[in-house]
Amino acid sequence: MNSANSALFTDLYQLTMLQGYHDAGMEDIAVFEFFVRKLRPGRGFLMAAGLEQALEFLENLRFSPEELAWLASTGRFSKNLLSHLETLRFTGDVHAMPEGTIFFPNEPILRVTAPIAQAQLVETRLINLLHFQTLIASKAARMKLMAPGKLLVDFGLHRAHGAEAGLLAARASYLAGFTGSATVQAGMQFNIPLFGTMAHSFVQAHDGETLAFDHFAHAQPDNVVLLIDTYDTEAAARKVVALAPELERQDIRIKGVRIDSGNLADHARQVRRILDAGGLQHATIFASGDLDEYLLRDMLAAGAPVDGFGVGTRMDTSSDMPYLDCAYKLQEYAGKARRKRSEGKQTWPGRKQVYRSYDADGRMVSDVVTLEEDVQPGEPLLKQVMRDGRRIAATTLADSRRHAAANLARLPEPLRRLQEPHVYPVEIAAALLRLAEQVDRDSSKP
Amino acid sequence: MNSANSALFTDLYQLTMLQGYHDAGMEDIAVFEFFVRKLRPGRGFLMAAGLEQALEFLENLRFSPEELAWLASTGRFSKNLLSHLETLRFTGDVHAMPEGTIFFPNEPILRVTAPIAQAQLVETRLINLLHFQTLIASKAARMKLMAPGKLLVDFGLHRAHGAEAGLLAARASYLAGFTGSATVQAGMQFNIPLFGTMAHSFVQAHDGETLAFDHFAHAQPDNVVLLIDTYDTEAAARKVVALAPELERQDIRIKGVRIDSGNLADHARQVRRILDAGGLQHATIFASGDLDEYLLRDMLAAGAPVDGFGVGTRMDTSSDMPYLDCAYKLQEYAGKARRKRSEGKQTWPGRKQVYRSYDADGRMVSDVVTLEEDVQPGEPLLKQVMRDGRRIAATTLADSRRHAAANLARLPEPLRRLQEPHVYPVEIAAALLRLAEQVDRDSSKP
Repeated sequence: MNSANSALFTDLYQLTMLQGYHDAGMEDIAVFEFFVRKLRPGRGFLMAAGLEQALEFLENLRFSPEELAWLASTGRFSKNLLSHLETLRFTGDVHAMPEGTIFFPNEPILRVTAPIAQAQLVETRLINLLHFQTLIASKAARMKLMAPGKLLVDFGLHRAHGAEAGLLAARASYLAGFTGSATVQAGMQFNIPLFGTMAHSFVQAHDGETLAFDHFAHAQPDNVVLLIDTYDTEAAARKVVALAPELERQDIRIKGVRIDSGNLADHARQVRRILDAGGLQHATIFASGDLDEYLLRDMLAAGAPVDGFGVGTRMDTSSDMPYLDCAYKLQEYAGKARRKRSEGKQTWPGRKQVYRSYDADGRMVSDVVTLEEDVQPGEPLLKQVMRDGRRIAATTLADSRRHAAANLARLPEPLRRLQEPHVYPVEIAAALLRLAEQVDRDSSKP
Repeated sequence: MNSANSALFTDLYQLTMLQGYHDAGMEDIAVFEFFVRKLRPGRGFLMAAGLEQALEFLENLRFSPEELAWLASTGRFSKNLLSHLETLRFTGDVHAMPEGTIFFPNEPILRVTAPIAQAQLVETRLINLLHFQTLIASKAARMKLMAPGKLLVDFGLHRAHGAEAGLLAARASYLAGFTGSATVQAGMQFNIPLFGTMAHSFVQAHDGETLAFDHFAHAQPDNVVLLIDTYDTEAAARKVVALAPELERQDIRIKGVRIDSGNLADHARQVRRILDAGGLQHATIFASGDLDEYLLRDMLAAGAPVDGFGVGTRMDTSSDMPYLDCAYKLQEYAGKARRKRSEGKQTWPGRKQVYRSYDADGRMVSDVVTLEEDVQPGEPLLKQVMRDGRRIAATTLADSRRHAAANLARLPEPLRRLQEPHVYPVEIAAALLRLAEQVDRDSSKP
């Protein structure tokens, strides 16, 4: 399959619109903003993610000769437009909230300012990149809040929606506070700590569980975490205890066990007793299998002796809410503010900024969304990150992860709840309300 | 980002297990099968998809020098294993149901027969590829059943989970009967028909809707579908009618309009009246915006005059069910059948085949899952598609799409329902039950 960097990861209408702008000689500066329209029930906040990949995409945007030849072969576009596409690069400015920033509906997390053809063309892939990582970081942050201090590992690649989704879910969950991932590519590409031991097939392929455990311990002596639920969880825990002394004699220490089926909390309690009685008090218990933030909360509230969790499918697909109601909308063109008024999908016009206020303890109190030039008290959340198509400063994933942790620490208690969280106050400033009214008045003229 | 063909799109445990198999000298033939454990409420059937990409992955499997160097740098693997990985290729056999085949829980749709290291290593990406396209084809097939004869276009790239998800959702939905996609890359790569016109930003960027429509009509004279809901849907429809005669004089014909917000059925009725009264009886109405199979059914049942639908997010994320409970499990190793007995996740051992029976009208009646050597009446659904690591025959996407349509035509009425579909009878043959009992007896010995 083709590289994900192809400029043809776009909707056809971006190109047909480019033909339209081109033929009409429309080349002025456009301002688009990316935002989420509303939260779903049960969600109190979102966490911005995906900016790094979005900027990488903008910096590398170009049509290859093969792509241009293919576009020409469709007969849909003029020669003029195609030669324009040949030299097209992204030369605009980008303002954005840093990755890891907590945000709310109607707050832009990214603004693109560029000649309209450029700003329009990049819409599809920008949404695609920002939407997915924001979706996953927001989901992972909920898990991090429910399981503070626990080892949290992304196990989701196999049921993520494609390879890129698996890779970027590893990144977004690590950003939001996960300890690491099982996805090897995420280790190589993003330097994310990797975790992994064995699957049931390893146990099944052996004639006997003890033999499988022994083979694995010798093959990975620094990483002996044994999967104990292939046949009978407690029986396997006793086999682990029985095997331990022989391994100790060979200087191999059993680090822990993994349980992947049944009632995880009950099994964890029984296995903990078996390990402790067998002298393996140091061995940890790692749980996996259809986990999500609700199950983490309930298991830990019930005092299940679990040290770490492998969270897969339900995080990598954000299964209870697999998409955000997000948009990338034109807010200004040729110096004039613009507004879409479609039913239920109205936008706030103009170039915007978001200001955040904190209480004396540093907790978030409220936000104001206003126009860029209308300076308000509080911390401005959008910062310039790209000028004339080039990034202004490099941000490492480690920086972003620290920023995310700091943001989560400032989140007020009533917003952390998994169910019926408070609604965080986001005010639309008077200046923005006035502009919206004015745009409506102007555009209601014929 | 790295190519999706990297061998490192795998879980770390595949590699730690390979170290274990390698050190233990385990090199025998393993048989793994991919299947879905159960359907979710409301789903009557699944449609197999993703085989083409799975076979492509197997044929091209190899570790690059950079990947090997990186693996070495982790210190987790022996020199011996790394030099084994350097020359590792997939040399096994694959049996599978053709793409587009309808299938049910516990029926393997793919079987891999290969030396255990190979068969194990490919698990993560095989699941990743088969799971996602099967998920989307199954969702898209439901839409196709609800809107027979309508133009159905995939609009989902922007909110799909990454670029690969968008591309493969375009493929899977086309396979299942969609007319085409908006994703340009899907046109170039899979020759899928492309559809697309304009976004709201195009209208907003102009000082007046009529001017935007006129510009677009001249830029895409063969493809004049106008988006009419940016400000006021019915007012825009009247502008379309007013513009039509001038365009006709220039030999440009308005092909249709698109509505993307509000009550789509109500707007479609009013717009139809306006277009008809204005002499645009030939112009079609295309609807989009948060659509899924339930809304398609309800709109068409209510007689909404809609000719085509753009379906995006809810299909590309399979939003009501964003994952399948699928698995790729070891069923045989070194000539011995194997069985996992984890609670709620037991598997059927051995190499299996699925036979399907039809009634006199060609409708599906029931399936039997049995062992490969236990020949049963009916049509065997699994066919050999790869021998010694090479594909046996090429199947085009057009072939698969025809196969999917033929399968949907054979689906009994009670299975087509969106709610409370019948449960299709899938029998586990006596030979398979006997083998499972025998495996349990054998492995309960120490």
